[in-house]
Amino acid sequence: MSDISDRQQLYEGKAKIVYTTDDPEVLLAYYKDDATAFNAQKRGTIKGKGEINNTMSGHLFKLLEAAGVPTHYIDTPSPNEMRIKRVKIVPVEVIVRNIAAGSLCKQTGIPLGTVLQPPLVEFCYKNDQLGDPLLTRDRLLVMNLATPEQLKSMEDLSRQIDQILSDFFSECGITLVDFKLEFGITSDGQLILADEISPDTCRLWDQAETDPNLRVMDKDRFRNDLGNVESAYQQVLARILSRLG
Amino acid sequence: MSDISDRQQLYEGKAKIVYTTDDPEVLLAYYKDDATAFNAQKRGTIKGKGEINNTMSGHLFKLLEAAGVPTHYIDTPSPNEMRIKRVKIVPVEVIVRNIAAGSLCKQTGIPLGTVLQPPLVEFCYKNDQLGDPLLTRDRLLVMNLATPEQLKSMEDLSRQIDQILSDFFSECGITLVDFKLEFGITSDGQLILADEISPDTCRLWDQAETDPNLRVMDKDRFRNDLGNVESAYQQVLARILSRLG
Repeated sequence: MSDISDRQQLYEGKAKIVYTTDDPEVLLAYYKDDATAFNAQKRGTIKGKGEINNTMSGHLFKLLEAAGVPTHYIDTPSPNEMRIKRVKIVPVEVIVRNIAAGSLCKQTGIPLGTVLQPPLVEFCYKNDQLGDPLLTRDRLLVMNLATPEQLKSMEDLSRQIDQILSDFFSECGITLVDFKLEFGITSDGQLILADEISPDTCRLWDQAETDPNLRVMDKDRFRNDLGNVESAYQQVLARILSRLG
Repeated sequence: MSDISDRQQLYEGKAKIVYTTDDPEVLLAYYKDDATAFNAQKRGTIKGKGEINNTMSGHLFKLLEAAGVPTHYIDTPSPNEMRIKRVKIVPVEVIVRNIAAGSLCKQTGIPLGTVLQPPLVEFCYKNDQLGDPLLTRDRLLVMNLATPEQLKSMEDLSRQIDQILSDFFSECGITLVDFKLEFGITSDGQLILADEISPDTCRLWDQAETDPNLRVMDKDRFRNDLGNVESAYQQVLARILSRLG
């Protein structure tokens, strides 16, 4: 762990522990190797995941910042740790879908692999007790989870992020199938990207593979017991680092 | 049963049997006393329901037609039977919610009884195998369940129907909490209201009662084993007939 003084645990989530620092506007996120799936009904460990996800998220946040997307990223003081801006998390998961997979297919019967053009931007209520239910835009607004302006900003930013990340992953020989984003509000009211961007939160398919199991480079390897979880995570990071040069 | 020639059973649903007639554009719906709930996991009989729902639906379809809403209703040849225009049913349930109840509360945690102003218009995929899942507008369009124009027409008509029915039920001393509509496409491409309007498809609360169980005048009495199911259905019809004079 890095030598940041006045560290106090603020909260522990499924994949990260968040600490306060001596600066009230700055938090420290510690990325764990713990993995969960299916609303934490399945639990395990993916060795090295904390470092990989922290490193990868850091690089991707920098890439997004360079393209004009505001994020909570400050810096990476140690392999497992990220300094981030303190925000109030909007209790909504934004899911961007370029290709149909996962819960979309289960819930609707849309076949796996269906290309979604334009990409779907969807919202789920971040609530484990309720099982993170799908939200219509109207439900989200009735529940006061965000203002109409924040909802529009989340959607616009998510589409911009999708374009940037899809292009970048494609340069790494990886298809960005879908991904989950979380946003937060800073103390001065700005909506910025928060949480992480990693094989835990993205579906990533190796463009060199057509086999539906072999191509999977993300947490679906853990969810669906496909094996080689660690090496898939390592491979994603290796390609990103290689591309960044 | 009425003496309509060339009757052939077209299909049997949970609450109705539909027959062809000698006119290819006309079908005959026979309303049954069978009741189901929770995606047909709960089954039972509500004595007299077929007649009540058929009679009530007929009157409400006439009320809507008089206000300019196109419906599949033709006439009521016998107490259990309705002649209807043949349509291709849009496989979408439109739910209009004036007050939060039922699946909305279960799924989101919105408290029962929350007034929704403007009313929520929601869509579910009519698919028993998938459990009639909630659809976002985007999912509905990706699945080609309706065209964007049909989607807009369904929403506009549903809001118009809500105003007409809410006013009418209120004159009967009943609050229209929420209701489900189905639409169909005629052979010449017109979108019209189909299915039924009854205590099976509406949540109806007696305005003279404040007790959350006593006020219920709809299928929730059956769903939640509140008793006096038949008399509640009878009471709704009696008030409607009395109001129509």
